[in-house]
Amino acid sequence: MALKLYGAAMSTCTCRVLTCFHEKSLDFELVPVDLYAGEQKQPPFLAKNPFGQIPVLEDDDITLFESRAITSYVAEKFKGTGYDLIRHENLKEAAMVKVWTEVESHRYNPAIVPIVFQFLVAPLQGNSPDQTIIDANLEKLAKVLDIYEARLSSTKYLAGDFYSLADLHHLPYTFYLMKTPAASVVNERPHVKAWWEDISSRPAFKKLTEGMNYVRK
Amino acid sequence: MALKLYGAAMSTCTCRVLTCFHEKSLDFELVPVDLYAGEQKQPPFLAKNPFGQIPVLEDDDITLFESRAITSYVAEKFKGTGYDLIRHENLKEAAMVKVWTEVESHRYNPAIVPIVFQFLVAPLQGNSPDQTIIDANLEKLAKVLDIYEARLSSTKYLAGDFYSLADLHHLPYTFYLMKTPAASVVNERPHVKAWWEDISSRPAFKKLTEGMNYVRK
Ligand SMILES: N[C@@H](CCC(=O)N[C@@H](CS)C(=O)NCC(=O)O)C(=O)O
Ligand SMILES: N[C@@H](CCC(=O)N[C@@H](CS)C(=O)NCC(=O)O)C(=O)O
Repeated sequence: MALKLYGAAMSTCTCRVLTCFHEKSLDFELVPVDLYAGEQKQPPFLAKNPFGQIPVLEDDDITLFESRAITSYVAEKFKGTGYDLIRHENLKEAAMVKVWTEVESHRYNPAIVPIVFQFLVAPLQGNSPDQTIIDANLEKLAKVLDIYEARLSSTKYLAGDFYSLADLHHLPYTFYLMKTPAASVVNERPHVKAWWEDISSRPAFKKLTEGMNYVRK
Repeated sequence: MALKLYGAAMSTCTCRVLTCFHEKSLDFELVPVDLYAGEQKQPPFLAKNPFGQIPVLEDDDITLFESRAITSYVAEKFKGTGYDLIRHENLKEAAMVKVWTEVESHRYNPAIVPIVFQFLVAPLQGNSPDQTIIDANLEKLAKVLDIYEARLSSTKYLAGDFYSLADLHHLPYTFYLMKTPAASVVNERPHVKAWWEDISSRPAFKKLTEGMNYVRK
């Protein structure tokens, strides 16, 4: 049975997983979940993910949620297929992938999510962006990116001189950030900017960007 | 060379890693970092972790930071030693460990950290706990724990009927939470309470709790 992903094309967390599928050249089926109709909060979907959010992966009798758990499962299960995202043959490189994957989760993601939300999602909900929230999180994000800038001046990618899951996890939210005035936080840092241009131009991700629009259809 | 951990006995993130070492029956050396003196923000330490926080692990020529990257590295590198925290021989169980480890990172941790901070750390810094922050995060934590309560009524631990890294990652912050008035959020949910009593009484964790005091020495 092919991999079955419940999600939506414009959803950041869905795209994180889809990018991973493409890097691994895997066959999959995308089952659309209608977020506007609240399908993710209905019992059939809650039986798959009690937190009521996309994405959800079904692989035979295994049901997984949380986008980064899914990418890590896929990268490991299919380690011999397509691009190796976890450097499974090199203990030291694999360790660095783990470190920078955690940095994305615990340092980058908490700062970037509210910025993207305020600029792009709040207006769809009829609210204007809250500048106080944006400023506080931009300050946090800038500090994180100062460290990325230093790191990326000595290695080409976050975990080392190889693209990995650690970079991949940054793609969807940064893609949306780059459509906002806060894009300067990336553009002002030359190594971060070059890294962004590099990772966002990988075919596995470029396939998806056309569908990435926070627009109510 | 033994594993070398830079950290502090009262630090939650250090204890997360130490618990893992004890579960795996590993030899290690704990190198104390003086947080009150700001040692973690000085160049020698920043060379190990540019984010200027503990813990940091040195294992031969590998230097890692981020507590969950360290536990995951250790659990995998030493999968044949001590207690198996990642169910490495069972694809489905290992997948569930990944899912619930991500739930801790993205749902539990962001809610519990500010509560513990307000009740236990703010007063040490001369501030009284901010009840608005506490209330907002208690509401989030309660929603997460409602889902844990349902989950733990069908499996003994989060990832299944086996203790794993997913449970372990919850230990240090929940230990501190239980010393605050917010402990009721755990105690009011019978399955969550039983789970907490079970996981917190494992010898690997009990060894550490004596040192877990947010008290300036
Ligand atoms: N930490 C989760 C977050 C999932 C998430 O935020 N999903 C969003 C779409 S990107 C969603 O389902 N939103 C609809 C809702 O919350 O009702 C993950 O990485 O999978
Ligand atoms: N996400 C990091 C957080 C590390 C962290 O918050 N460390 C605290 C101690 S628990 C620290 O070093 N605090 C001192 C400081 O920030 O200067 C991890 O899991 O390792």
